[in-house]
Amino acid sequence: MQYAPKEEIDARIAKVKVLMKKASLDGAFFHYKIDYYYLSGTMQDSLLFLPVDDEPVLFVKREISRARRESPIGQIMPMRSVKEIPGHLKPMKKIGMQLDVVPYNDVVKFQELFGNAEFINVSPLTKEVRKFKSPFEIALMEKAAEIQKKVYALVPELLREGMTEIELGGMLEARAKAMGHEGLLRVRSLNYEAYTWHVLSGRTGSIVSQSDSPMGGLGLSPAFPVGASMKKIKRNEPVLVDFGICYHGYQVDQTRMYAIGKMPDLFSKAFEACREIHYRVLDKALEGLTSKELFEYSKQLADRLGYGEYYLGFKPHKVRFLAHGIGIELAEFPYIAATHTYPIEEGMVFAIEPKMVFPRKGACGIENTIIMEKGRYRVLTDNDEDIITV
Amino acid sequence: MQYAPKEEIDARIAKVKVLMKKASLDGAFFHYKIDYYYLSGTMQDSLLFLPVDDEPVLFVKREISRARRESPIGQIMPMRSVKEIPGHLKPMKKIGMQLDVVPYNDVVKFQELFGNAEFINVSPLTKEVRKFKSPFEIALMEKAAEIQKKVYALVPELLREGMTEIELGGMLEARAKAMGHEGLLRVRSLNYEAYTWHVLSGRTGSIVSQSDSPMGGLGLSPAFPVGASMKKIKRNEPVLVDFGICYHGYQVDQTRMYAIGKMPDLFSKAFEACREIHYRVLDKALEGLTSKELFEYSKQLADRLGYGEYYLGFKPHKVRFLAHGIGIELAEFPYIAATHTYPIEEGMVFAIEPKMVFPRKGACGIENTIIMEKGRYRVLTDNDEDIITV
Repeated sequence: MQYAPKEEIDARIAKVKVLMKKASLDGAFFHYKIDYYYLSGTMQDSLLFLPVDDEPVLFVKREISRARRESPIGQIMPMRSVKEIPGHLKPMKKIGMQLDVVPYNDVVKFQELFGNAEFINVSPLTKEVRKFKSPFEIALMEKAAEIQKKVYALVPELLREGMTEIELGGMLEARAKAMGHEGLLRVRSLNYEAYTWHVLSGRTGSIVSQSDSPMGGLGLSPAFPVGASMKKIKRNEPVLVDFGICYHGYQVDQTRMYAIGKMPDLFSKAFEACREIHYRVLDKALEGLTSKELFEYSKQLADRLGYGEYYLGFKPHKVRFLAHGIGIELAEFPYIAATHTYPIEEGMVFAIEPKMVFPRKGACGIENTIIMEKGRYRVLTDNDEDIITV
Repeated sequence: MQYAPKEEIDARIAKVKVLMKKASLDGAFFHYKIDYYYLSGTMQDSLLFLPVDDEPVLFVKREISRARRESPIGQIMPMRSVKEIPGHLKPMKKIGMQLDVVPYNDVVKFQELFGNAEFINVSPLTKEVRKFKSPFEIALMEKAAEIQKKVYALVPELLREGMTEIELGGMLEARAKAMGHEGLLRVRSLNYEAYTWHVLSGRTGSIVSQSDSPMGGLGLSPAFPVGASMKKIKRNEPVLVDFGICYHGYQVDQTRMYAIGKMPDLFSKAFEACREIHYRVLDKALEGLTSKELFEYSKQLADRLGYGEYYLGFKPHKVRFLAHGIGIELAEFPYIAATHTYPIEEGMVFAIEPKMVFPRKGACGIENTIIMEKGRYRVLTDNDEDIITV
């Protein structure tokens, strides 16, 4: 088990503090664990307090001895309730909290504790810092990609006619876990739950669901209406395997295409178009285009290649992003999307996923997790990209 | 795939409306999907509006055609943003929202839309209704228990010396999924994530973590510090398999004990004490004792049997519940716990889990999902309870 070193945590905190100063925050409470993990190194049940001009304090409900082992934060103290937050905290006028995710009732408790203070959403600040990955983070993502590579190498071995989508998804997941995959993917959302078993075959690839994805899949029931289903995988139909791996909280995401027998021409041709879009957009990213420009460019490419109607879903279910940043959340900055205006820069990591969806027929596409380096990009999920038929 | 029938949804809504009237609510918005699934039958990305004296309206962001298939609600309309909620909704003074789970910023948007209205937490109302299960719900839980039974029957076949905890957990999960298990368990919490792979062996059974459980396990990293780990399972040590199954959103929970070779006496004797507490508490529940009285009774029993120090964890990590209600959430009403004062009644379903934890040595225990019926209780997870050695 690997813990985040002190220098890593210190550097992250320093970056957030710079943005807090800019936003005139006196301090911030991190109550949602994704960000306090990022800033402290532990996911024990805690609350991180970050004063803008003082040392951080980690209040731990359970389990404090593990928190002390996992986190290099200097002040780690027990806490059972927010009411126990020491009264000697300096008076604050502007306090940051993760207002996008922390429940209303929890925020109100803090507002009552800090009478006249104004509460500001601090999440945009951590999201901005987390947009760039450190060498420590990249090393963990490389490790996740290694597991990913071994998992995808198993698909041709496991895939057989008549097995259900969920059977394949479950087997891949079991093998991934045995190699250190944490099983859960994480998204910053009240209602959306991420999952690793996104295995779609033939027609289920064209089924849309609650998720902001061009293809949702059928899922197993109305209670979990996304991802792999009880549909049996047949010969000569596209099998899309979109599988995420999580290692020490760091995720990588990848999609590859398979077929038993032969991949129908419709999908093998569309797949080539996806691959072309994938690499041409990356080349353009190196030229310094903004997120929005890259997205528009990809749409023009899809149009020119004759796939405009099917690119990133069909109407009215098209999605408005081609890539999502990835790290300790499955979807974070940077995006390559219709409404994002920043450039794609060195140190950013994202999953780019051009996909085509054909109504009532199915879907195909490719996805890789990419890191932007000085003057080049690197494919973290660098295993075989060709369609594999068994 | 099974959809909730109209009569089922109508009956649930009618019960919630009775409580809404009592609380003088004019209407309520259900934004968190666990409860809108309960009240509508769909988990598509939606918002359920329930006026106290009118028909419900389901506003759907994505995907409306699936929502219409899955839900018997009469009025299902598209919505892209809360700002689109029709202005012709009657003026309301008191509005219910799930203030315990909906993020602060989302609630504020609603407050802005409904200027002078007072917002009240509606979650206690649905929790109260969900405390009692209908025959439709029980049938789904029985189906989950059937899958559960087959999964546990696999343990002796799969368990072997030298495999890691996570390897076993992952295999069980893969087999469960192939039978319809949805992979995710659900809890009403910002930071706690439920998971199915709670396989602890020997010393990891005594490791405490962020979860409100007597034994948290080691987990795979500081980013997921609970449940099965990379520890290898050895001969002659206790192997605790606590595995949840989710079918159509309905969960059952169960714990059984295994050993390769021989179970050490410490654990086999403590296991018998757990089993005695389990059944004696259930007998007492039939006599009409309250939750709190049952919890106290179980503690006295543990003391008398000589296990007071280890019962439900060791100090300072003891938990204060013996049973948790279960259904579409892994932990819901009723609890058998130190602070709950209601009796355990007909129609309630809960998982009872007396467990003993020995510092630095490990844990053992038993857990079953129980339904209270007229004058008796029934064990839903009714497979072999003895310690199994392989």
